[in-house]
Amino acid sequence: MPRVVVEVMPKPEILDPQGVAVRGALGRLGFEVADVRQGKRFEIELGGEVDGAALDRVREMASMLLANPVIEDFAVRAEESA
Amino acid sequence: MPRVVVEVMPKPEILDPQGVAVRGALGRLGFEVADVRQGKRFEIELGGEVDGAALDRVREMASMLLANPVIEDFAVRAEESA
Repeated sequence: MPRVVVEVMPKPEILDPQGVAVRGALGRLGFEVADVRQGKRFEIELGGEVDGAALDRVREMASMLLANPVIEDFAVRAEESA
Repeated sequence: MPRVVVEVMPKPEILDPQGVAVRGALGRLGFEVADVRQGKRFEIELGGEVDGAALDRVREMASMLLANPVIEDFAVRAEESA
């Protein structure tokens, strides 16, 4: 069944304390990296066809519930499930 | 600069309470969906070339820190940053 993936990331201009903490923890484990940003990933099974209208509905879900559009950007795309 | 994306999702056989809660909240907002799984997404800037060895190093980071391999699966891939 096709599913929709929603990726939510902190906006580039917003400080990301989770990413900063992960970067620090990686450094303590011996992994030096330049930057880490942490966000969320949702896999949604709609139980129906994934067409343009369905993707618009998921964009509405993302801006109402899955993301906080003041501080986060989101991307919505259809994906074949395994 | 190229970056590496790590996607961490609960294993299919593991109950995902966050996803269940999101599905319920979507339902209360009038969005009926069949299933929701919630995971994490990391964007990592390595500050160097993203080759096979670098991706192997990120896989090591993922299994040590970013994911809990007992209950989560992860995927690692290179991505051109915007």
